[in-house]
Amino acid sequence: MLIHGRPYRTVWMEGQAVKLIEQRLLPHRFEIFSAENHRETARAIREMIVRGAPAIGATAAYGMVQVILEAQDGPGRDAFIAAGYELLRATRPTAQNLFYALDRIRDAVAGLAPRDQKEAARAAAERFADDEAEACRRIGEFGAALLADGMRVLTHCNAGWLACVDWGTALAPVYVAHRAGKQISVYADETRPRCQGANLTAFELAQEGVPVQILADNAAGLLMKRGEVQIAITGADRIAANGDTANKIGTYEKALLAREHGIPFYIAAPASTFDLNCPDGDAIPIEERGEDEVLYAHGWTDAGEFGRVRLAPEGVHARNPAFDVTPAKLIKGIITERGIIEPTREAIARAMAE
Amino acid sequence: MLIHGRPYRTVWMEGQAVKLIEQRLLPHRFEIFSAENHRETARAIREMIVRGAPAIGATAAYGMVQVILEAQDGPGRDAFIAAGYELLRATRPTAQNLFYALDRIRDAVAGLAPRDQKEAARAAAERFADDEAEACRRIGEFGAALLADGMRVLTHCNAGWLACVDWGTALAPVYVAHRAGKQISVYADETRPRCQGANLTAFELAQEGVPVQILADNAAGLLMKRGEVQIAITGADRIAANGDTANKIGTYEKALLAREHGIPFYIAAPASTFDLNCPDGDAIPIEERGEDEVLYAHGWTDAGEFGRVRLAPEGVHARNPAFDVTPAKLIKGIITERGIIEPTREAIARAMAE
Repeated sequence: MLIHGRPYRTVWMEGQAVKLIEQRLLPHRFEIFSAENHRETARAIREMIVRGAPAIGATAAYGMVQVILEAQDGPGRDAFIAAGYELLRATRPTAQNLFYALDRIRDAVAGLAPRDQKEAARAAAERFADDEAEACRRIGEFGAALLADGMRVLTHCNAGWLACVDWGTALAPVYVAHRAGKQISVYADETRPRCQGANLTAFELAQEGVPVQILADNAAGLLMKRGEVQIAITGADRIAANGDTANKIGTYEKALLAREHGIPFYIAAPASTFDLNCPDGDAIPIEERGEDEVLYAHGWTDAGEFGRVRLAPEGVHARNPAFDVTPAKLIKGIITERGIIEPTREAIARAMAE
Repeated sequence: MLIHGRPYRTVWMEGQAVKLIEQRLLPHRFEIFSAENHRETARAIREMIVRGAPAIGATAAYGMVQVILEAQDGPGRDAFIAAGYELLRATRPTAQNLFYALDRIRDAVAGLAPRDQKEAARAAAERFADDEAEACRRIGEFGAALLADGMRVLTHCNAGWLACVDWGTALAPVYVAHRAGKQISVYADETRPRCQGANLTAFELAQEGVPVQILADNAAGLLMKRGEVQIAITGADRIAANGDTANKIGTYEKALLAREHGIPFYIAAPASTFDLNCPDGDAIPIEERGEDEVLYAHGWTDAGEFGRVRLAPEGVHARNPAFDVTPAKLIKGIITERGIIEPTREAIARAMAE
């Protein structure tokens, strides 16, 4: 997608370097971070220069290419590669996508002579990133069929291309429809406490030229009642076997409002988001994060640097659940790279068996 | 109510001075502003040292006492009093409560000899403030009957004593129940964009010793689903003849969630909040405020001063509707100083005719 009129992915490789959009500075500053070796790439993942499971996966794949490029011929070679693999694997211990990406590269070079591994690793990493981008583009194609000219789309949090390699999930249909010439505009919930909607969703939509307005998380109900929202699409962190969907806190409230006003509410997510071992939403654990995210707001000060302001009185505490579960009955459909899936146990089992 | 263990009202008179809690500094600093004459009192209203219609009304009443105390005997006396009245009246041109308060004092001294006016004005102003406090206390008494030991109450925005003379509206039942020894705790929605929940509701509850936790506006749905909220109470800006209620943006969303989870949702407001000329919620105009409230967050910096941080990228815009309307069908009852009123046209007409 575009930033300052030029096409970017969140991560790519140039020579031996892994290039990353420095996401900690967005939306206030746009910089490219260059990880010159696999140790710097590991640090970039650990320090959240890159975020979003698909983007982290692709970064790890490229990092594994660096490991193989950096490995010297000789008796220590295998140990060096194994150590590099472990270093990258330890950057974010619960990121399923990251483990999968590393294994894809390791498996692609298994059994090859050292001199053939470099090209094979690079090709496997490019294929991995391309596959991720293509899955999102297909989500966009399927979802764009739901978007008629003139529609106003509500979204929550950031499920855009900045969290993926390209295109995004919830925002992919918007980008595909926009590029096809449809007039689509977006309401982006700011999504307290971390404000990924105000920070990232608003930024990436504006850079792509899609009209966007930010809403306080309290405002969608009024706009729906007035008929100013025609469809709602969000991403997902985990989808249970029955279609119950965990996503950023507040998603459930928007889904309930959508039903009340007869507005279709869609989830957009790759097939890898489904967890068929999880029977329903009650089985999804909800992370409760530190209270400072609620007690403060973080952003860009008038002096032009990152800062925070305290909203709450000293000594008062906050609750900070990071996700909620939207029951399947409130979801019209789940937009995946395999098509739009009805949120029922049967339809999901069928689609995942393909 | 208590601040630092001492009882306060938001406004009171000492000798010739009007004393006000400096609300612009809350919750980060507690200071008393002393308006030594009616011009300073007018400035305090204009510059929002005091806020909340009932608190503004009482401040204006005391300001009118100052006018009468300051008026010199002689031919210019009536003109001086008229000018003072107009100065106070012009501080906030749309505040119905303010006009009413000024007229109460003016009427109380009408026809009296100048030497008798001073005592009469002072007595009328004290009566006005006492009436306001008593109405809120009665709201608290009626509402406290709904609060059983151990209940967790959700509230939105600030409808506490800081907006009134004492006790508050939505929070009055909590204070009455708490003082009666019931274990009541409160979830305070932070209430973006202006965060009156995080700032003021959390502050005044904590000062009174009521357990309170702040929530991002996205979190109530999850807590309701988990059974962690037993009742919801908010204030009101305007109640239509059929019970539809305008209040701070986001109130509607919480009411809808409450219905979904079988949690009773109450409005608490004095009888003066009903507008029988307004047939229903569709007739209530919704103010749309400046977008900077959404694009920024305001609070207390780590350097110990007020400041703001920008959440949104430069060049992106926001919508900022300040109120929404909760339909009567979502409201279990309206807690007033006359009792708890069923939100139907008939019950409201009957209660207002009393």
